[in-house]
Amino acid sequence: MKNSYNVKSKLALLVVIFFTYFGFSQSNDQEQIKKLYDAALTQGKGYDWLNYLSNQIGGRLSGSIQAQQAVNYTKSQLDSLGLDKVWLQPVMVPKWVRGTPEFAYFETTPGVTTNMAICALGGSVATPPKGIKANIIELGGIEELATLGKDKIQGKIVFFNKPMDPTQINTFNAYSNCVDQRYSGALEASKYGALGVIVRSMNLRLDDFPHTGSMGYGEQSVDDRIPAAAISTNAADLLSTSLKLNPEINFYFKQNCKQFEDVESYNVIGEIRGSSKPEEIIVVGGHLDSWDLGDGSHDDGAGCVQSMEVLNLFKKTGFKPKRTIRVVLFMNEENGLRGGTKYAEVANTNKEKHIFALESDSGGFTPRGFTFDSSDKDFDKIKSWKPLFEPYLVHYFEKGGSGADIGPLKKDGMVLAGLRPDSQRYFDYHHAENDTFEHVNKRELELGSASMASLIYLVDTYGF
Amino acid sequence: MKNSYNVKSKLALLVVIFFTYFGFSQSNDQEQIKKLYDAALTQGKGYDWLNYLSNQIGGRLSGSIQAQQAVNYTKSQLDSLGLDKVWLQPVMVPKWVRGTPEFAYFETTPGVTTNMAICALGGSVATPPKGIKANIIELGGIEELATLGKDKIQGKIVFFNKPMDPTQINTFNAYSNCVDQRYSGALEASKYGALGVIVRSMNLRLDDFPHTGSMGYGEQSVDDRIPAAAISTNAADLLSTSLKLNPEINFYFKQNCKQFEDVESYNVIGEIRGSSKPEEIIVVGGHLDSWDLGDGSHDDGAGCVQSMEVLNLFKKTGFKPKRTIRVVLFMNEENGLRGGTKYAEVANTNKEKHIFALESDSGGFTPRGFTFDSSDKDFDKIKSWKPLFEPYLVHYFEKGGSGADIGPLKKDGMVLAGLRPDSQRYFDYHHAENDTFEHVNKRELELGSASMASLIYLVDTYGF
Repeated sequence: MKNSYNVKSKLALLVVIFFTYFGFSQSNDQEQIKKLYDAALTQGKGYDWLNYLSNQIGGRLSGSIQAQQAVNYTKSQLDSLGLDKVWLQPVMVPKWVRGTPEFAYFETTPGVTTNMAICALGGSVATPPKGIKANIIELGGIEELATLGKDKIQGKIVFFNKPMDPTQINTFNAYSNCVDQRYSGALEASKYGALGVIVRSMNLRLDDFPHTGSMGYGEQSVDDRIPAAAISTNAADLLSTSLKLNPEINFYFKQNCKQFEDVESYNVIGEIRGSSKPEEIIVVGGHLDSWDLGDGSHDDGAGCVQSMEVLNLFKKTGFKPKRTIRVVLFMNEENGLRGGTKYAEVANTNKEKHIFALESDSGGFTPRGFTFDSSDKDFDKIKSWKPLFEPYLVHYFEKGGSGADIGPLKKDGMVLAGLRPDSQRYFDYHHAENDTFEHVNKRELELGSASMASLIYLVDTYGF
Repeated sequence: MKNSYNVKSKLALLVVIFFTYFGFSQSNDQEQIKKLYDAALTQGKGYDWLNYLSNQIGGRLSGSIQAQQAVNYTKSQLDSLGLDKVWLQPVMVPKWVRGTPEFAYFETTPGVTTNMAICALGGSVATPPKGIKANIIELGGIEELATLGKDKIQGKIVFFNKPMDPTQINTFNAYSNCVDQRYSGALEASKYGALGVIVRSMNLRLDDFPHTGSMGYGEQSVDDRIPAAAISTNAADLLSTSLKLNPEINFYFKQNCKQFEDVESYNVIGEIRGSSKPEEIIVVGGHLDSWDLGDGSHDDGAGCVQSMEVLNLFKKTGFKPKRTIRVVLFMNEENGLRGGTKYAEVANTNKEKHIFALESDSGGFTPRGFTFDSSDKDFDKIKSWKPLFEPYLVHYFEKGGSGADIGPLKKDGMVLAGLRPDSQRYFDYHHAENDTFEHVNKRELELGSASMASLIYLVDTYGF
């Protein structure tokens, strides 16, 4: 009897300890997360920061004056937050300049022309000063180059018109499935003797905005490179219809963009030093550079101010992390990834121990969840946090990619994550003239910041 | 042995039957739901219907010419879908007219005035033709009337300035918590001798749009009624700050809105007759009327075209329902609920058996899920469908309200449901001049239609 009583009482004690401990810690987490959301929605600075970045500075292409202004501005704002350390990390970045506005038209019969808005793809070479005028041939994707062969393509402008697939619920999947025509279209088409490449904009909506974005020539010699540009989805449909009526259409375009020598720029970094495990570093970031057509509000001004906000929210709610929380605003994600590469290089040189990195680079829309690049064991731990996010309608916790800038940091045992906002509107604005401040909703942006801060709070509290 | 073998083999057979049946039916469901989403995103008509309702017709206040045009247009579109029956259900509706544009200013010292945009609340009486000018007093809500008492309020204009709570994740909760000042503010303030009421717009964002909405005088005699109007959130903040500097501020406003005799209007109804259980009716609907300031794209043009789309998607995908699927475009949700009341009345008179009704009246934003007004048993069945929606990022299945128009249908054993789109942007546009077509995203609207069609497909297939 005594024995049995003892066992029972010990069991009872364990049960009490278990529930006290877990009950307590869970309610603690709920409380801290509620504080973070409340602070984001009532005292957030992110929307004002984004207003400045977008409306006072504007598009921040690597190597531009605006990119440097953005470095100065975000550093000054981080300085004002009372962090333990704020610094600039030098990095050499490519400098590509669009030049004077591009011009394009198609000609159905000699003298009968229809102008269309066009934009050079980032990294493209210029056309000859007088432009290029040639017969244009429509292709449904890069793979059709081989089917048609050199005979049909030589001496022509290739028009890649593969649309994004509207049935993809995650619009980033639709993007992945056709962005090769933008990135590699010129390189591939040049092998078949094409003179230039025109790409349908990566946009699910029918509108009049051409969308730029990076393209590459690989190791191709400069003399063999052909120019590439994008036209809007409406223009692509018009051109396609016109080609069906008259396959002899000529297309004309002119652009005088130019690649300059690399210039010095910076990653902007700030940190709150950890109280008990300062050597373990948690990174949160976005990229400070943007394309030049709009003001880069969604891509990726939003991710930058959300990342800065994480540290601001910790300060506002009085949360003192055990580990070092570092915000990194990476330079040159769009056309080089030099900032992300440099950050990882320096981290390795300094033998820094990064345990977690989170990137926000999918727009400032309502947060739906996160994707994680992690071991199964770490992912099990992460999934145990999911119920804490349900009151905030953040449901999506899946394995998947994280973000381009934090990719180079990846090491065994480290967890990378990406914020996953609602993706339906993202490609309406992506890399286009209309990626502007008024298309960011204050609350949606703030809910993203709060979700990121909550996840980082949990990683800091429970580690990996 | 034999016995045991028999039991085992019977069990095995049951297991095989179970998995065959449920495996089959689940993959059937997945397939049909995928068809519905694909059709919505590639062949949906909703966005074009909404374009017409918004841009060719515009705001559709009950009793207006536009409301009648909307009845005619939606009936003609339903006629074109090849449904089994399309008809108009007559209903008498109130006719309230805004009249000439309202005008307002506040006066800090005699002759020093600041104009502000203002709109009469729906159902309000007019001011005297020369307007009302009086000292204005700010209150944080209706409950402060009793605290201040008649002495402080008599002869003044009451300014209700309780803001929506930004920390509510579901913005409809923030709305519920302060809409009493709009609906009952005039009735209550008049009991303390107020001359008129000005309300802060129900909007979480700071902008310059006044938001209208319904208000009521209950049984109050016409002579005792005082006029009520809304000012924008920016104007409310300006007025509040000015009152802190100078409590003697006078406010002036003038409006000549008017309530006319009831007029005849219609619910617009169409149905696909069920193949094997036609007597069991499933309703899907939204409300066709809207306020007059914008074009009612989100409230509730979106819900109407989504409901019409459900039947269109069934036709497009070749799905033939067992039960009768009926779309109802209710008239007069905004200021009377006459359409919803009439529909339920006729259904009762005709002893129709409604098993399910779904309303979309929370905007055309990305669908997050549904709320259900049902028994626990039915809700258990509904929850078993949840995994089918996960590929479409529709996660939220909770007990809760449904929709105002379908409320009168409620009977024991019947299930009501409401579509729950993302709510963050809804009150940016709700009842204001900027509730316009360009603020509806095509894909978000279509995902809502597909989610509704999928839920109705499941209800039709499995019943309650």
